[in-house]
Amino acid sequence: MINITLPDGNVKQMDKGATPMDVAKSISEGLARNVISAKFNGETVETSTPLTEDGSITLFTWNDDEGKTAFRHSSSHVLAQAILKLYPGAKLTIGPAIENGFYYDVDLGDQTISDKDFKKIEDKMLEIARGKHDFKMRSVTKQEALDKYKGEGNEFKVELIENLEDGTITFCDHDDFTDLCRGGHIPNTGIIKAVKIMSVAGAYWRGDENKPQLTRVYGTSFPKQKDLKQYLELLEEAKKRDHRKLGKELELFTFSQRVGQGLPLWLPKGAALRERLENFLKAAQKKQGYEMVVSPHIGQKELYETSGHYAKYGADSFQPIQTPNEGEEFLLKPMNCPHHCEIYNSRPWSYKELPKRFAEFGTVYRYEQSGELHGLTRVRGFTQDDAHIFCTPDQLDEEFMKVIDLVLYVFGSLGFEDFTAQVSLRDPENPDKYIGEDENWVKAENAILNAAKAKGLNYVVETGEAAFYGPKLDFMVKDALGRSWQLGTIQVDYNLPERFELQYKGSDNEMHRPVMIHRAPFGSMERFVAILLEHTGGNFPLWLMPQQATILTLSEKYEKYAQNVLNLLENHEIRALIDNRGETMGKKIREAEMQKLPFMLIIGEQEEKDGTISVRRHGGEDLGSMTIDAFAKIVSTEIASTMKTFD
Amino acid sequence: MINITLPDGNVKQMDKGATPMDVAKSISEGLARNVISAKFNGETVETSTPLTEDGSITLFTWNDDEGKTAFRHSSSHVLAQAILKLYPGAKLTIGPAIENGFYYDVDLGDQTISDKDFKKIEDKMLEIARGKHDFKMRSVTKQEALDKYKGEGNEFKVELIENLEDGTITFCDHDDFTDLCRGGHIPNTGIIKAVKIMSVAGAYWRGDENKPQLTRVYGTSFPKQKDLKQYLELLEEAKKRDHRKLGKELELFTFSQRVGQGLPLWLPKGAALRERLENFLKAAQKKQGYEMVVSPHIGQKELYETSGHYAKYGADSFQPIQTPNEGEEFLLKPMNCPHHCEIYNSRPWSYKELPKRFAEFGTVYRYEQSGELHGLTRVRGFTQDDAHIFCTPDQLDEEFMKVIDLVLYVFGSLGFEDFTAQVSLRDPENPDKYIGEDENWVKAENAILNAAKAKGLNYVVETGEAAFYGPKLDFMVKDALGRSWQLGTIQVDYNLPERFELQYKGSDNEMHRPVMIHRAPFGSMERFVAILLEHTGGNFPLWLMPQQATILTLSEKYEKYAQNVLNLLENHEIRALIDNRGETMGKKIREAEMQKLPFMLIIGEQEEKDGTISVRRHGGEDLGSMTIDAFAKIVSTEIASTMKTFD
Repeated sequence: MINITLPDGNVKQMDKGATPMDVAKSISEGLARNVISAKFNGETVETSTPLTEDGSITLFTWNDDEGKTAFRHSSSHVLAQAILKLYPGAKLTIGPAIENGFYYDVDLGDQTISDKDFKKIEDKMLEIARGKHDFKMRSVTKQEALDKYKGEGNEFKVELIENLEDGTITFCDHDDFTDLCRGGHIPNTGIIKAVKIMSVAGAYWRGDENKPQLTRVYGTSFPKQKDLKQYLELLEEAKKRDHRKLGKELELFTFSQRVGQGLPLWLPKGAALRERLENFLKAAQKKQGYEMVVSPHIGQKELYETSGHYAKYGADSFQPIQTPNEGEEFLLKPMNCPHHCEIYNSRPWSYKELPKRFAEFGTVYRYEQSGELHGLTRVRGFTQDDAHIFCTPDQLDEEFMKVIDLVLYVFGSLGFEDFTAQVSLRDPENPDKYIGEDENWVKAENAILNAAKAKGLNYVVETGEAAFYGPKLDFMVKDALGRSWQLGTIQVDYNLPERFELQYKGSDNEMHRPVMIHRAPFGSMERFVAILLEHTGGNFPLWLMPQQATILTLSEKYEKYAQNVLNLLENHEIRALIDNRGETMGKKIREAEMQKLPFMLIIGEQEEKDGTISVRRHGGEDLGSMTIDAFAKIVSTEIASTMKTFD
Repeated sequence: MINITLPDGNVKQMDKGATPMDVAKSISEGLARNVISAKFNGETVETSTPLTEDGSITLFTWNDDEGKTAFRHSSSHVLAQAILKLYPGAKLTIGPAIENGFYYDVDLGDQTISDKDFKKIEDKMLEIARGKHDFKMRSVTKQEALDKYKGEGNEFKVELIENLEDGTITFCDHDDFTDLCRGGHIPNTGIIKAVKIMSVAGAYWRGDENKPQLTRVYGTSFPKQKDLKQYLELLEEAKKRDHRKLGKELELFTFSQRVGQGLPLWLPKGAALRERLENFLKAAQKKQGYEMVVSPHIGQKELYETSGHYAKYGADSFQPIQTPNEGEEFLLKPMNCPHHCEIYNSRPWSYKELPKRFAEFGTVYRYEQSGELHGLTRVRGFTQDDAHIFCTPDQLDEEFMKVIDLVLYVFGSLGFEDFTAQVSLRDPENPDKYIGEDENWVKAENAILNAAKAKGLNYVVETGEAAFYGPKLDFMVKDALGRSWQLGTIQVDYNLPERFELQYKGSDNEMHRPVMIHRAPFGSMERFVAILLEHTGGNFPLWLMPQQATILTLSEKYEKYAQNVLNLLENHEIRALIDNRGETMGKKIREAEMQKLPFMLIIGEQEEKDGTISVRRHGGEDLGSMTIDAFAKIVSTEIASTMKTFD
């Protein structure tokens, strides 16, 4: 008998040789039906692996990330088998699970796969799946493994095997198919009920452009047909909400080949949107005692040597800017913090004057390879909603509370309701890895934990995940499509105060180092606007909309009344424009819908006579005719419901 | 007899050999008393030079720049003579007139001049001046000239003479002193009534650090003692108003050696001031239909090759930024225009959509040698209040009118009442020097002239001063100390639209090039704030003051009432702070005066009881006690009187 410890701490006595599936069955039939992969003593095992010693087990279902990975990994075996059946002579290379699916890289020789072939591959995969073939692991000697693939003439697998140590080599068999594999499968192919080939692309063997080009076949798979359907709908919706597409349609930003990749140009509507976000944050920051500063976009190399950023952003980054004066070199700033440290250092401080909170919408530049650039989410120049708080160790508690208040206010006002937080603490086993005094770390970590608790955050603690210079708190938000984004970070820093020799005079009349907090609720204006676009599909909260209403005239003769309405709306600080073109009302409404305009105010003879407007919401709801004042009340009520007052 | 034409066109018949002084006498005794230098047929002559042919004459008095130059040039002869008398063996080199004075570079051998010696030199100069010695020009041969200075062992003058052509060499004699000189003196030394040695400094012969070091003696001189006194007072006042000094006192900006020279860091109060200026201009621009855009601070080298800026800012500037990707190079942007052209080019335009007015507070970087840097007026990174108007040639008239309106509104709201304008037109003799069609130049020049006339500007026209790419209009303002600053420029550009192939579809359905107008009413935020500081001495217009009032408590027990007052002021949008320190009222008031706070609101027992404040203006005026509402009215009235509404 062996003792198997379950995640809840309970111990099951099982026969030696019992499998994870047996463990599942011993718990419940329901679990046995759903379990698809397992870990034993921290190692991935098959659900059919005989357990021969005491240990801890974790059983995974589709709902676990590990379960999904096993499912997709297994699916890639089925894909490989289908390809071999349909494309005789194809040589397999590697085929891992990835986020939301899997791929397989194959050498097709003279053959090709086009999107017309996807259906054929899917059908073959489903046919195999329906055979309910068990996945079975088998150990082989290195020679056996080499013999198999040399016999097939597959130089790729041969190369892989040659790099493996003998004794660790395993094959996985199912049906008539065998692949070199480290394990981690679902019980059998029958669980795979839905598959979809997503795309094909070229890929170099081992990612090296000097090596042969292979065909990468991307696929995904699900345990239920309806899950696949839902996933494809989500993809469709994500495509519609792609911020690059919306950014173009809404005329928010553009890129220019001449200006350079990854360097967004904000068009008038985008610049206005961005300014509105900045003003929103500025107003809230002002209430918390932040002070805006302005610093240049370059600094002497020496500045970044002092801060340590030069070492970090060295060779892979924008290179130093030479000047006619030899030896005088500048760097595009990758971070605002060194500049803010120098601002702090421009005069002496007493503890009575702290905390100082210097904020700046500071544009920084970091070189990314062009292949890594993506719309506004991965760029080479971006504006951080940056601030640095310089405080005494004793003030950390209150400062953290305030920063969390600010972050929650920002998320709430922008419609991000679903978020989690991660507290990253130091590894208590390795105190030498970290800079700063022990006593201060204790204070800082407690400050974060207390604040997270006090503010009722849904957070996890990750021990050992702190940066070497201090603990931190990160926020992850879920967008309307259920995708997670990292937004908002709060970091304690003991390093830069040390490097820049920051000081304040304490109540003891001695000089002390202040603690520094880095924080950026948005992260960067570019990335935040991108996420907001994808989250809202362009239907921003009303207070943020570039244009909150459009006045649609039934004919051009109502221009004067339209102008009156516009002036009244301006008095109510409602942003509106007039569409007085000689187009049909149908066309005007369609275009206003396309532009996501929240309110369409239709005016014709009746409205002019009554001094009213007929109000139509984006999406079609008819609010009927009303006075401008009544409409203004609707707008202000809606704004107040999203952007609450911040105190 | 010869015919001498006067500037007003009148012609005087004079005896051949008559001097400019004779001409002056023939006009009036008063003029003869005041004339101190002259030009004949465009050449500088002495007032004693015999005129031997027909020609045009201009006579200058102290009130003319040319008169001042002759006066200071002559004074430098007297300085040289005094130095030779006081420092035997000193070798003279060169001694030109400069703005507000003159200097002489001398080789003193082992001797030195310190500030203790200034009085002695001044006394000697005045003693010489009182001798009323005539300045007399004399031609010499090259050999005579060389003989004189070789005899004196003056290798500097020898070097100068060796570089001159024979036949053009002249000496100037007065009293027992002779100097190599091209001419342009006042009649005699007696006119010099006041002199002042300002400073001494080191200077290399011919500005070359490999050549001998000389002593540069700076001086100034005036025809009246009271002019000197006034000038010295002005200097004293200018020193007090030095924006570098005020910037530090008012905590507006700082520099850091680590960040780099010429790269200002804006401190909270400065950043707030700057933001207020930006918001002020933004609001006015919005009314004129400008749209804000945001562009990055770098661009690919190719962008600036297209624009032509790379050729212009090449080797003397910040060098290109290399990347890990060979051949992909970026430049710190020296100008915003190329980016705005690319924004224009991001979509097609119809003539119906023009003009487009893209505005940006765009930070640009230009390398200046460290010796040329000066506070905020000469920096390496500065933020232009930039905008580019893209319009049809027919729209130039109206656009120019609007831009002038905007510039005048800016000047008026910031207290610059005294300004002139310069219209720079092309040289009609050299049409090939300019890019753009003749017809369009005519339109543009007329647009500028018409607008300047219609807006009642005090302007001069400078023919031939246009840039090769278009005509322009520049504004010069006089500050409170009478110093002139160039502020605000409006330029027409036919070049960039060509280089960037900008287009719009005209009413004829054909594609046309738009015209581009560059304009910046402030010029740059840095330089403008510097000028504004020196103009106002830090007493900004009330609407702009970082802090409009300070609440001074008679003792700490009035803190709660002070807070009430502060809240009420905030409701009135008055920016105030509380000074509740336990200091004496005298000290608090002195410090508030130092910080240029416009209003001090004193509160004590009586005020708390009555719900009032006792108001004291900066400078000392007592406005008595009043309610917060009454005070708010004073503030709003004063603001309205400076910053008028802009429509």
